[in-house]
Order: sequence, then C-alpha cells, then structure tokens
Amino acid sequence: MPLNLLFAARPERWETYERPLRDALDKAGFGDANLAQEIAPQDVDYIIYAPNSPLQDFTPYIKTKAVLNLWAGVEAITGNETLTMPLARMVDPGLTKGMVEWVTGHVLRYHLGIDTDILRDDTKWVPRTPPLAQERQVVVLGLGALGAAVANTLLGLGFNVTGWSRSPKDLPGATCLHGEDGLTKALSQAEIAVLLLPDTAATENTLNAETLAQMPKGAFIINPGRGPLIDDAALLAALDSGQIAHATLDVFRVEPLPTDDPYWTHPKVTVTPHIAAETRASTASEVIVENIRRGEADEPFINLVDRALGY
Amino acid sequence: MPLNLLFAARPERWETYERPLRDALDKAGFGDANLAQEIAPQDVDYIIYAPNSPLQDFTPYIKTKAVLNLWAGVEAITGNETLTMPLARMVDPGLTKGMVEWVTGHVLRYHLGIDTDILRDDTKWVPRTPPLAQERQVVVLGLGALGAAVANTLLGLGFNVTGWSRSPKDLPGATCLHGEDGLTKALSQAEIAVLLLPDTAATENTLNAETLAQMPKGAFIINPGRGPLIDDAALLAALDSGQIAHATLDVFRVEPLPTDDPYWTHPKVTVTPHIAAETRASTASEVIVENIRRGEADEPFINLVDRALGY
Repeated sequence: MPLNLLFAARPERWETYERPLRDALDKAGFGDANLAQEIAPQDVDYIIYAPNSPLQDFTPYIKTKAVLNLWAGVEAITGNETLTMPLARMVDPGLTKGMVEWVTGHVLRYHLGIDTDILRDDTKWVPRTPPLAQERQVVVLGLGALGAAVANTLLGLGFNVTGWSRSPKDLPGATCLHGEDGLTKALSQAEIAVLLLPDTAATENTLNAETLAQMPKGAFIINPGRGPLIDDAALLAALDSGQIAHATLDVFRVEPLPTDDPYWTHPKVTVTPHIAAETRASTASEVIVENIRRGEADEPFINLVDRALGY
Repeated sequence: MPLNLLFAARPERWETYERPLRDALDKAGFGDANLAQEIAPQDVDYIIYAPNSPLQDFTPYIKTKAVLNLWAGVEAITGNETLTMPLARMVDPGLTKGMVEWVTGHVLRYHLGIDTDILRDDTKWVPRTPPLAQERQVVVLGLGALGAAVANTLLGLGFNVTGWSRSPKDLPGATCLHGEDGLTKALSQAEIAVLLLPDTAATENTLNAETLAQMPKGAFIINPGRGPLIDDAALLAALDSGQIAHATLDVFRVEPLPTDDPYWTHPKVTVTPHIAAETRASTASEVIVENIRRGEADEPFINLVDRALGY
C-alpha cells in the first residue's frame, strides 16, 4: 500500500519542497507515495514537519511512525506532550556546502578586489596585481563543523589559514589558536576574518572596539555566523575610521534588518539577507526520504532528537 | 666575490621587483649579491631582463652567464644576434595560481549572485537560495595548463565541470568533450562558461552569434583567455537580448580597452584590466634566483629558450 506522507508546514514551503521531495522519493523507490498537505490523520505514515505549522496536536496520528523536521531547530516542538512518536531534526549536508561556497566566494571577492571592477564608473584601465592566496592571511573564528569545513576549503585554495576557538582544536594545515591570548594573536594578522562562532554569552561582542583595533589596518570582515558576535557601533566606527576596510554581514541582531539600520546604506558594508547557510530543499529532501526508507526497512532513524536533552 | 646582477628593464619594473628579488636572493644564500640597474658590462654575471629594456647590444657583456627574462614572451629578443649567452624565459607558477584564483572568484560570484548584494540600493530583505555547486554546470573551454588547473579547482569546490578542447583530452572528474559537435554539446549546458583557449586562427570568434545562441538562456561568460575568442558584436547583442545574463571580460582585441568601447559602460559587463594572469614578482623572483643558483652550481638552467625554435 502506498505510503501516506503528510506535509505539515506553511504553504510557501510546499512550493519549495514538493518537487525535491517527489524526486527524492522516486529515487528511493517510493514513487507511488501519497505526498500531500491534507491526509486523514489516522492514515498518515510519516509527517514532514515545520514547527511553525498549524499542526500542534499529534494525538489523532495513531499510526504515524515518525515526525521528520524540515530544519535543525526543534526547540519550539520538543515540549509538545502529544508528540510521542520519534522526532528527527534536519542535519542537511547542503547547509554546510552552501556555507562553504558563500564564504569562499566572499573571501575571494575581497582577496581579488572584485568590487573595484563591479562598481567602476569610469573608463580607466588601471591594472593591479593582488597578492596570491599563499600571501594572504585569513582567520576563521570558530572551528565547529562549519568553521572547519570553511577553513579546509580555504586551505585547499592556498590561503594561509589561522583558526581560533575558545578551547584548543587541531586542523591539519592551519595554525590553530585558542583562548584570549590566542584571539589577540589571531586578529593581529587577520587580513580577512570570518566569524563562525556559536551565539553564546561568551562569544557576544567578540569583535568590539578593542579587538577590532587589534586587526591590521584595512582588514575585511565576513560574518555568516551570528549577529551578536559583533558590537555594531564599534564596527561602524572602525569602518568610518578606515581601520576596517569593508564588511559583509549575513546575520544581524534583528532580522530582517530594519530598514533604518545604518548597515543598509553604509558604503563599506555589504548586507546579505541571511542566505549563507540555508537548508537546501534538494539535499534536505534526500535526508527526509532516507529516514522514510529506514522506517520502512526497520532500520534505526538518523538525527533523532533526544527528548530529555531537547535537541 | 659577490655576484653582479644587472636589472635591465624599465624603471617601474625595478620598483616592483627589487624587494622580491632581494628576498629571493637572501633565501638562496646570495644576500651579498650586487643587484643594480647599472653595472659595468664586463663585470655582469647575470642579466635580469625585459625585452623592452634599452639594453639591446649584448656584445660588451663578456662574462655574463645567462639572460633571465622577466616574462614568458621572448619573441622580441630571439632574433638579436648579439645575445649569444643562454636565454631563459619566465615560467611563473604564480601566474597559474593567480589565474585559478581569479576565475574561481568570478565563478563563485556568478554562482552566488553576489552582485545583487553589492549593487543593492534599497533596503529590501529578500532571501534567496542559489543552487549548490553540485547543481551548477560550468564549462571550461580550453584544457591547457591553465584550463586544467582551473577545472580541477572548480571540481574540488563541487561544481559539475565540462571541459572542451579542440583535440581529445582527459581530466578525471570532468566531462571532456572535443571538436565541433563537442562544442555544441558543451555550450548547451554551460550555465557559466570560462574561456581559456589559445589565440589561434581556429579559435577566433569561438563565441559568436550561433554558439552564443546554443547556451542556456541567462548564462554567464568569463573570459580571461584572449580577446579574439569572442565576436564582440554578437556578445553585445546576446547581452541585450538577455540570452547571456552577464559577462566578465579580462582581455580584449585592443588593450587598454578604448575609452569609447561599449563594454566599459554596459550594465551587464564587468571589465577587468587584464589582471587575471599577471606574472607575480614574488614567485617570478624565485624562478630567476633558482636559475642563478643553478648557474653557480654548474647545474643546467631551467626554462631555456631554444633559439632555433624561437621559444
């Protein structure tokens, strides 16, 4: 009997996910599955789920084998006592890949001075020779899964990479520093700094007036991590003084970035609308279908949420 | 006795090369060498040379062991009958690295749609999710040393790479096509096309009205190869019609690009002033000093010009 797969998320998600999910189902041999936004609860085999969906009472889903979350964060649903079936969060390999591609693109953009050519409004032929990647110091703050993946790709392109983390880490090919002293040393040579630290009390305002002043004059900052990592007033002052040459910011303390925020119009800031690390419908759909395959084969689910721990 | 190293090139080259040459000499144990723009001819051990230098009569350089060219092209000097000592041309590993970095930066720029963020002049927060590199088709036309190096780096970043060359080539991980039919097939899937073909009668206007029409609508073109590879009028028409979304051009039939050339001001064209593959003073200086080391150690010179062949 064909599987009944309930897609429980806001309608705009359906537009994004229907095709990739059907493709992934086809590929896995479930081409006959009934994937829909409405199915009688008692018939549903799996729920493909977004925590902000109207579906909040799981009681009538008596035969549902698992709830498969469309994204990583499950904090909005782990406290729901009607959700008694296995709950899997999304661990999307496409998210890491997308982050690596976004950061690498912006590092190369600064490295090569591409903005000069994009924004040129005269007809002056002025050749320039940027240093090679092997002559460029890039510092990655944060060496978790994303930071390590970014650092490895930049190393592969020939950049000198220094990684910094609060506790000691090791990354072959990179100089790894940690702690307060390590941060000062890392920033003192950071021609380009990439922020990929988690958002915790300890990392708030990692870049502030003092630490920005430790960077080489004319350094570049790329923040695809978290908004609170940067003291915004201090960064704006450092941009205005020329201490920091340019910043590309993908994350902010308030999102969407308010229309009156000075970042929008600052000539030395590029705003990107939180796009560095999106869950990708294509790769995420494959992860969801893999869990369906596992459920049907009586194999253990992947990425299961530990309900006691909450993640 | 310290070596006498005559630097015979235009004065602006001296500014670029003095420091890197001295660094490379230091590193190779020749820190005491006399590197200068004027040395009595009979005392000169090696000439570091640019063919457009005023030095054209090599007769008085009776003890000079080799002439070491600062760049690859030697066609302006191979006919000089007074140049009887060994002549080495420049094969600079930095040139290939610089080309790979430049192309990779512009491929990622198009792939990620970075211009949207750089050129944004409103405060609209409009998230977008570009495809992953693994969902993007990049075609590299020309699989010589530069094209192969570029293709390998793009493969390493996860792109789908198709390489095309006039004669059959093989590049692990890439789809390799050749000949006329191969070109049509390659272009038909080229979301981003990189031109790295040599400049020959057979490659002139490789991109013309017919071949541009074979590309997917909205494709991107990157030309760091040679100006004549593109029929300029056909490209401008394809940009205006939307068939080609945008082009980044580093090389032109006439350089510097004339101030009245339509490429300068076209909203869908980025002009870069022939900077994709510069000889780099740092890496080129190391190649020159390596030949001095070889000369002093009675080892054979590298990159020697065959005077009969002329290259």
